[in-house]
Amino acid sequence: MCLPAQNPEETIEPMMLYMGKLAREAAGELALASTDAKNGALGRMAAALEAGAEKILMANSQDIEAAKKKGRDAAFLDRLRLDASRVAAMATGLREIAKLPDPVGDTISSWTRPNGLEISRVRVPLGVIGMIYESRPNVTSDASGLCLKSGNAVILRSGSESFLTSLVISNILTEAITASGLPAAAIQLVPSVDRSAVGFMLGGLGGAIDVIVPRGGKSLVERVQEDARVSVFAHLEGVCHVYVDKGADLDMARDIVVNAKMRRTGICGAAETLLVDRTIASTSLVPLVDALIEAGCEVRGDDETQSADARVKPATDEDWATEYLAPIMSVKLVDGLDEAVAHIEHYGSQHTDAIVTNDQDVARAFLARVDSAIVLHNASTQFADGGEFGMGAEIGIATGRFHARGPVGLEQLTTSKYVVRGTGQTRP
Amino acid sequence: MCLPAQNPEETIEPMMLYMGKLAREAAGELALASTDAKNGALGRMAAALEAGAEKILMANSQDIEAAKKKGRDAAFLDRLRLDASRVAAMATGLREIAKLPDPVGDTISSWTRPNGLEISRVRVPLGVIGMIYESRPNVTSDASGLCLKSGNAVILRSGSESFLTSLVISNILTEAITASGLPAAAIQLVPSVDRSAVGFMLGGLGGAIDVIVPRGGKSLVERVQEDARVSVFAHLEGVCHVYVDKGADLDMARDIVVNAKMRRTGICGAAETLLVDRTIASTSLVPLVDALIEAGCEVRGDDETQSADARVKPATDEDWATEYLAPIMSVKLVDGLDEAVAHIEHYGSQHTDAIVTNDQDVARAFLARVDSAIVLHNASTQFADGGEFGMGAEIGIATGRFHARGPVGLEQLTTSKYVVRGTGQTRP
Repeated sequence: MCLPAQNPEETIEPMMLYMGKLAREAAGELALASTDAKNGALGRMAAALEAGAEKILMANSQDIEAAKKKGRDAAFLDRLRLDASRVAAMATGLREIAKLPDPVGDTISSWTRPNGLEISRVRVPLGVIGMIYESRPNVTSDASGLCLKSGNAVILRSGSESFLTSLVISNILTEAITASGLPAAAIQLVPSVDRSAVGFMLGGLGGAIDVIVPRGGKSLVERVQEDARVSVFAHLEGVCHVYVDKGADLDMARDIVVNAKMRRTGICGAAETLLVDRTIASTSLVPLVDALIEAGCEVRGDDETQSADARVKPATDEDWATEYLAPIMSVKLVDGLDEAVAHIEHYGSQHTDAIVTNDQDVARAFLARVDSAIVLHNASTQFADGGEFGMGAEIGIATGRFHARGPVGLEQLTTSKYVVRGTGQTRP
Repeated sequence: MCLPAQNPEETIEPMMLYMGKLAREAAGELALASTDAKNGALGRMAAALEAGAEKILMANSQDIEAAKKKGRDAAFLDRLRLDASRVAAMATGLREIAKLPDPVGDTISSWTRPNGLEISRVRVPLGVIGMIYESRPNVTSDASGLCLKSGNAVILRSGSESFLTSLVISNILTEAITASGLPAAAIQLVPSVDRSAVGFMLGGLGGAIDVIVPRGGKSLVERVQEDARVSVFAHLEGVCHVYVDKGADLDMARDIVVNAKMRRTGICGAAETLLVDRTIASTSLVPLVDALIEAGCEVRGDDETQSADARVKPATDEDWATEYLAPIMSVKLVDGLDEAVAHIEHYGSQHTDAIVTNDQDVARAFLARVDSAIVLHNASTQFADGGEFGMGAEIGIATGRFHARGPVGLEQLTTSKYVVRGTGQTRP
């Protein structure tokens, strides 16, 4: 006798819907959990990760083996790999989150109306977060900690390559959470690597998911932004610019440009394009290009930049729109602020852009006119990071205009409600 | 020779995309417009409406004639009808908006990092608002004023029945805006009543529209929420509750219940369901039901409420989920706070819910546990209104969890960006 062939989607959909239901119930409990209860759980979670390090590393080595067999490259394996210090860092991360102020219950503003009504706007959790990520297994722990502290339930969808590691981590965390008296479904890992699970999450699981946070490559984020039927906190890419104005101090400009590009080339806040005011081309272009090349950066430039240094390769139109995430920078001369702003508007990604100048008026105009989540004056674009902003950990960076713009930390994982206290007022 | 038959969608789509492009350009200018320039334009707009009242009323009488021929009912005609005092009210509304503080450029928070970076979070306009509305022609003016003051461009899509009135109003407003030196495309009325225009707006016009605000009946809002590919500020309905707890003062409860239901039955903050604590049924149920019926309200109740007063009609399960927008109220006894909260969670619409009690602990629990945009203690649900909150005019009320929750006023029509000022900082 044969069993009927089974379509995985048919078994996955009811499971996903059930996870959504559990998450929604857990969110109801978490929304009312005290700060102490949440911090206690975070402490237990950290200790449990440390105690379970050996199990985590065993699972991780299996994931690594499988990824090697699939021919994944060194960068991928590095993102996937855990060691004792990386597990310890995950635990430390949770303890840091415990130390951050609890946003839930915060009064954002309050006022009294002439009729005596006391109105306050109070932070409450968003509800249920859907986290879809790829190879970094530490996201399991980081996202769980941030969601728990902000009173949200989270449904985690780990990439298939890090699935075993994520599974062991999430089991350890769930055990610690239940031991703390908080609901087990506060964090749930989708127990399947079938791709249809992502589709169901993007559909919102029948209203159970409030927001999707994708963490991974451009193709993942693109798919999420295309297909999600619920809100998304994400940035597709960071084509970040540094504009060196004629009023810039050359030494400062050189330091900022090299740091913005080369400190770490693989992060979204790394600069990709250098715009130089044509007025100072004769004095500044050669030193800036030279500093980049000396630092190990390939420079692709417009005609004038190519003329300035023989090592500069030609930039195509595609270069201006490219997030290299690599030691490559495109360089272009522009006719002052107007052309710089127009270039950023046309080719940028509304992520992070910087100006270097000592002219305060030009700086003010740049900061006002460039329509990006983060704009900087005389500082490196690599500061585009929740930690560097002093917000504690971040679950991602958003370039959308709604709700969360820039680093997404605890505060951005909340919404608000209006609480109105009266003494019997009726409306005339 | 025949002209080829023309599909209206083929001519409407390029027009809509072009309007989107113009709106986006206008939004860039408006974002940088000074408060004085915007307030000056609002003043001119108000004066122009007053000066053009005759033209507006002529167009309106044509709309009214056409609607009568279509057999529209009295309530519809009342929403559609303008008279001299309603035109004057539109002008007054614009002058009130001019008096409200300008949210653009406001610093929401600012702090200095240990490395000296000064970080501030500054309000900027959302961009382009798509307003889709039905029969009330005053929305043309109200929405234009709010969007302009908050630095946003708006694309207005009037219902077909109010189209002529809206067209005359928008032409008058556009003339006043250009005379003030602001871009003509700050407000644009879709010059077609073809339904496909709505579909194109919901698609976002190739990224030109940032948010859609629907104003009208449930079927319009439902369609927008279903089909929009961009953010939406809306509430589908307001199934609002008043819970009278055992700790309530009976006189206060009676005043609040009657006001919440009967002051105006057609607004979203009108209460639809009364929940009464079973413990006080013997003393409070009859007076509350009697007060409602005396005020002209039909009462539909559960078995116990029917037993208490012979005039009470039976409530079906559907009643608990119904927004009557009429002098009808459903009444149910509940076993204290827990059942009240559970009922509201199950049947409510996360809009506005109130408790009447003098027990501060029960009130606190209700305000925390009921997950609605607005929760009230000892006050009528009819206060759910941006004006009553002291926010000035509102463009609508949102029950979504993102960005705007509750009344949507000037502040909610903005987003923010991070402005970082340094002195040459690079990231270690």
